[in-house]
This record gives sequence, C-alpha cells and structure tokens, in this order.
Amino acid sequence: MCGLDPAEALWFDAHCLVVRAEIPGIGHFCRVVWRAHVQEMTDLNRLEQHHLLDVVLAVETVLRAALRPTKMNIASLGNQVPHLHWHVIPRFFDDPFFPDSVWTAPHRAPRGRETLSEDALRVRLHEMLRLLPKLPL
Amino acid sequence: MCGLDPAEALWFDAHCLVVRAEIPGIGHFCRVVWRAHVQEMTDLNRLEQHHLLDVVLAVETVLRAALRPTKMNIASLGNQVPHLHWHVIPRFFDDPFFPDSVWTAPHRAPRGRETLSEDALRVRLHEMLRLLPKLPL
Repeated sequence: MCGLDPAEALWFDAHCLVVRAEIPGIGHFCRVVWRAHVQEMTDLNRLEQHHLLDVVLAVETVLRAALRPTKMNIASLGNQVPHLHWHVIPRFFDDPFFPDSVWTAPHRAPRGRETLSEDALRVRLHEMLRLLPKLPL
Repeated sequence: MCGLDPAEALWFDAHCLVVRAEIPGIGHFCRVVWRAHVQEMTDLNRLEQHHLLDVVLAVETVLRAALRPTKMNIASLGNQVPHLHWHVIPRFFDDPFFPDSVWTAPHRAPRGRETLSEDALRVRLHEMLRLLPKLPL
C-alpha cells in the first residue's frame, strides 16, 4: 500500500487516499489508505487521527446517500497488510454475508446490485471532501 | 445496547461507555458503545465522532501498551446489533483466527494468553481518559 499511485485514486490529499474495491454481491466499497507507512491509528497524532476519520466518514456519507445500505461497516484490520487503511463497506440485508462480516463464508449467492459509476463516486467524494479543513503537513 | 448499565462499565462519560468482552484464544478485548441509540457514525456530529474515536483510541493505547499485540483491529459493524459500537481487539500472530478477522472460522485451537485483570484495565483506562477533553452535552 506504500506504492499506491495517487493519480489512480478516487481522491487524495497529502496524507491519505481513497480507492475503490469490489466484493461480489455487495458491489463497490472504498478503502481509505494512510499514505505514509504506519501500522496503527495510535501511531498517528490526534489531528491526523481526526483527519483520517473525517475522510472515512465522508466516504460513508457518500455511500449511504447513494446506495441506501441496510448498515455501514467500517474497519481497520490490516492483519494481512499491516499498513494503516480503512474499509468502508455498505451492507445489504440480502448480501451474501449478511448479518455477518464480509470476512467470512457467504450464506447465499451474490445478487447483482446497482452501484455508483466510478465517475459519479469520484465527483461526489470531491464535493464532500472539498469542505474538509486542510491538515497541515 | 441501549440498556447497558454505566455502573458495570470499565469507564463511561455522558456519551459513551467501555465494556470488556472475551474471545477464546485472544483474551479480552473492549467494546466502546455510544449510549444514545444511533446506528451509524455519520448519525453523530463531527465533535461527537471525534470524541468517540478518541475513546476508541485510548482503549487501543492501553491494550497495545499492556499486551504488545501483533496488530490491533478496530471495527464498527453492527449488522446484528444496529446500535453504534466499536470493537477494539488486540490480535496475535498465533491467535485462532490470525491473519483473518475474528469473525470467521478459526484456523487453530485457542492458546491460553496473559491478559490484564479487569481492575488493572479499569485503572489504566481511567488514567488515559482523564486527559480527554470533555465533550459538552
């Protein structure tokens, strides 16, 4: 995750970037990645922690408004990739894993699901995150 | 989770409370529960969001310092209990689920693991959270 190219992100600033990912039957979700290599939230200072949460929750706001999920799941695990990142996942009552986490065996087959186009997601994220105060370097 | 008794929590303020939970082979972890009934982080205002993160990360700090886990996992899922709460889970390279999430089938048998006593956890949490600015009601 240290080598992610900001030019390929949906959104980025000097500290973090947002990329799109996919889970069959859930459609797209987003990952928010801290650009510098740190492992845990508590390796950041308090301003950085709040900034990263602000970005994660801007993504949540965009996904909730567009997709009307049953529930949002947000998580920073990183057991396999110990570089600080967040999953922001819209969940649906009939998705393959519901009501369990997406990190488990599915209960049912994936269904096609309407998603936002990458362009629409990018536009909405930029609209939301334009309002976010800049975190000094 | 609306009915949790603050008197039984490890720590509480007017907005949230911290309780201890257990996963075999991981030992204790903590849950941080928002006391008012809301479903998502984005149902809170920005000051409340930051306050809740501050409490979650105070718990992470205490658990990291005491247990030296391989990785911390923090997550707000709530698919089964749609009342805003966070899991703060210390993970170990040889715990039953590693490197997967704890919400899956185990890969190996649980091992006994040293944990903090409830009293020690309570004392350290209070020491950490004493420093946290109060969030106005």
